[in-house]
Amino acid sequence: MNIPKTSFPRIVIIGSGFAGISIAKGLKNKEVQVVLLDKHNYHTFQPLLYQVSTGGLEPDSIAYPIRKVIKGYNNFFFRLANVEEIRTEENTIVTNIGALEYDYLVIATGSETNYYGNREIEINSMAMKTIPQSLNLRSLILENFEQALLTDQYHERDALMNFVIVGAGPTGVELAGALAEIKKGILPKDYPDLDTRRVQIHLIQSGDRILKEMSEKASQKAEDFLEGLGVQIWKNTRVTGYDGKTVTTDTDVDFETATLVWAAGVKGVEIKGLNAKDLLVGGSRIPVDEFNKVKGHNNIFAIGDVACMQTEDTPKGHPMMAQPAMQQGKNLGENLVRLLENKPLEPFVYRDKGSMATIGRNKAVVDMKNIRFQGVFAWFVWMFVHLFFLIGFRNRMVVFVNWVYNYVRFDREARLIIRPFNRNYSAFKD
Amino acid sequence: MNIPKTSFPRIVIIGSGFAGISIAKGLKNKEVQVVLLDKHNYHTFQPLLYQVSTGGLEPDSIAYPIRKVIKGYNNFFFRLANVEEIRTEENTIVTNIGALEYDYLVIATGSETNYYGNREIEINSMAMKTIPQSLNLRSLILENFEQALLTDQYHERDALMNFVIVGAGPTGVELAGALAEIKKGILPKDYPDLDTRRVQIHLIQSGDRILKEMSEKASQKAEDFLEGLGVQIWKNTRVTGYDGKTVTTDTDVDFETATLVWAAGVKGVEIKGLNAKDLLVGGSRIPVDEFNKVKGHNNIFAIGDVACMQTEDTPKGHPMMAQPAMQQGKNLGENLVRLLENKPLEPFVYRDKGSMATIGRNKAVVDMKNIRFQGVFAWFVWMFVHLFFLIGFRNRMVVFVNWVYNYVRFDREARLIIRPFNRNYSAFKD
Repeated sequence: MNIPKTSFPRIVIIGSGFAGISIAKGLKNKEVQVVLLDKHNYHTFQPLLYQVSTGGLEPDSIAYPIRKVIKGYNNFFFRLANVEEIRTEENTIVTNIGALEYDYLVIATGSETNYYGNREIEINSMAMKTIPQSLNLRSLILENFEQALLTDQYHERDALMNFVIVGAGPTGVELAGALAEIKKGILPKDYPDLDTRRVQIHLIQSGDRILKEMSEKASQKAEDFLEGLGVQIWKNTRVTGYDGKTVTTDTDVDFETATLVWAAGVKGVEIKGLNAKDLLVGGSRIPVDEFNKVKGHNNIFAIGDVACMQTEDTPKGHPMMAQPAMQQGKNLGENLVRLLENKPLEPFVYRDKGSMATIGRNKAVVDMKNIRFQGVFAWFVWMFVHLFFLIGFRNRMVVFVNWVYNYVRFDREARLIIRPFNRNYSAFKD
Repeated sequence: MNIPKTSFPRIVIIGSGFAGISIAKGLKNKEVQVVLLDKHNYHTFQPLLYQVSTGGLEPDSIAYPIRKVIKGYNNFFFRLANVEEIRTEENTIVTNIGALEYDYLVIATGSETNYYGNREIEINSMAMKTIPQSLNLRSLILENFEQALLTDQYHERDALMNFVIVGAGPTGVELAGALAEIKKGILPKDYPDLDTRRVQIHLIQSGDRILKEMSEKASQKAEDFLEGLGVQIWKNTRVTGYDGKTVTTDTDVDFETATLVWAAGVKGVEIKGLNAKDLLVGGSRIPVDEFNKVKGHNNIFAIGDVACMQTEDTPKGHPMMAQPAMQQGKNLGENLVRLLENKPLEPFVYRDKGSMATIGRNKAVVDMKNIRFQGVFAWFVWMFVHLFFLIGFRNRMVVFVNWVYNYVRFDREARLIIRPFNRNYSAFKD
């Protein structure tokens, strides 16, 4: 990898999502050599991917060059690499660009879509965890309508205009809401020669309420909002299969659709070597102690979605979301410095800043520790918070311009098929 | 294609570049049925593609949804289609989504990169005529530097950091200037562990001056600007081959590079059927009369780059640029309306509004009919004119925000490898 060995200890960080970036900041210009690895050269602001898929935002404005994040971090080396294996005995990682020794290893590989072993769904459905995936979904949605224009078969046309979203977490709910807005505001103008009233948006949820991580009130309100927008919600329904045409469920309902978006779950990204099956806990996560140290290792840490810190308050670990990732990254960064100064470590304490989801124009739900609210104000809070956490002034400006424009004009101009989605070329999937 | 036959005559327009959009506007809600075809669902503002390649702009902000252009054009049908053949005897076109009869056909297919039959260069070089091509170039440039970090071989590293641009028209000159700005402003910060002073930018030109369509003064000034930025200009040099490693020329100079950008020429996009070899003139262009009517046909017209109107002032046809395309589109739109009202047609008269090119920060050259100027003011004029001709308020705003940011911060934040460029997967090339 062409990285010089110095007298400073070497910390290798795998992944530059919220957790990786957060720990990087804490190690800036400290007396350590840091090697940051990622399979992309950019950081992705995942909470806004659904807006890329629905033509509301450019991908470039929710991505940020990693090399720019670490500009002026004189003790940092970034490498674009896929980590293939961890050799714990040799304190070495193996990547597609060579092997590298570490003194300390930080695993911040995040999470990927969880198909729960259903290969058929994995092959035929669309995911929305990366920018390329989101662009594929954007292309497919637009291609479906272009295709729908060409057929006289009602059955086929309806299937092309049906959208089935599995999983009613924030991603599923926000995507469903955005599609409903598009149906109302854009499709009738873009496709005057198509009966876009027939467009259907189905949101399927195995549990008995949507946004189940949030309060009852938020769930109920979000449900009202979605139904007001014409989204059809199916609760207590588990999707069992999708052959690219028909979605089957464990109830007697099934759906004919050309587009199944799978937002039903995530799991930790496994790396060969460390993540021996006996080590991993539910959802392929790595069990860590209160210092994010991986059980059974002294110089390997895991943070963010991939880490599972089981405490009394969090028997299943912390929620796989941005907040715990950023907080764990910050805490571990400080702890590594303490470690090298032989100071005692601080255990991780999660501060739940609440959660929120937007359903559409003027519609959002916010749960905070002591206060919960829904509607227009929640929607403004949602926008403010997302602009605030977005990295980079230019990104904030561009996203802001887009949001103002889209709001004022009831529009989303990034409805472009820049690279057609090709089901048969799987490399397009991520 | 599912397009109803009405009592109105049907005008089919192939292509929605500057020419196609321009004629479309003239036919809005007239007593004709218009079918607009394009292989993309967006209009591309080609003059700014080089900024997409160099990370200065998002692709989405120089593209514009065609369906939005024709919003409220009640007599229009848009179809996403590749036209495969024109059957003039049957007044029919054949496309990948079916055949279609026309009463009048307007060919506005524009131009594509001209390799002058050199297949080796076509396979190994990068073009910059479409958004996907420009994104591929962006990815390749960034991948080269990531790659350069990994090798100890000076020779290989230099090849990865050498950029050879063939053709010193506006595209080549503007790309060379942008790369020089990146070398100065961004690379040293992004790649502190790489000796980016060794980055070389070569601009090769077969003629004896650059920007040969412009005034001597502009050529000279542009040359001074480029050399001031460290670009190496090779005049009277013709590139003869490129195997992916070495660029050979008709002089004794050759270049080791991983990146050859071919901007040395364009030619009209041919369509089977009409464009019989005997019909086409230099550069695969279709000869048309002063009404843009295709020689030998009564109901087929050609406008823009693909059309060659040979007049006394333009023995080789008009320059293959936006201005003639837009003006011919406008004139033909008006003429088709006259035609249907049995009024006499107006011959096309080209109004040369001058030409301009930007070399970099505060550096541009402008030739207008009665005045020529270079430098900072020219640069502001260049920006104003490009913002003005860009379609869409949102696009203008986003581009403006990016330009201001890039100018103030000496930065280009869209340096993202969103889809790695893969030489071996040719579909990636366009």
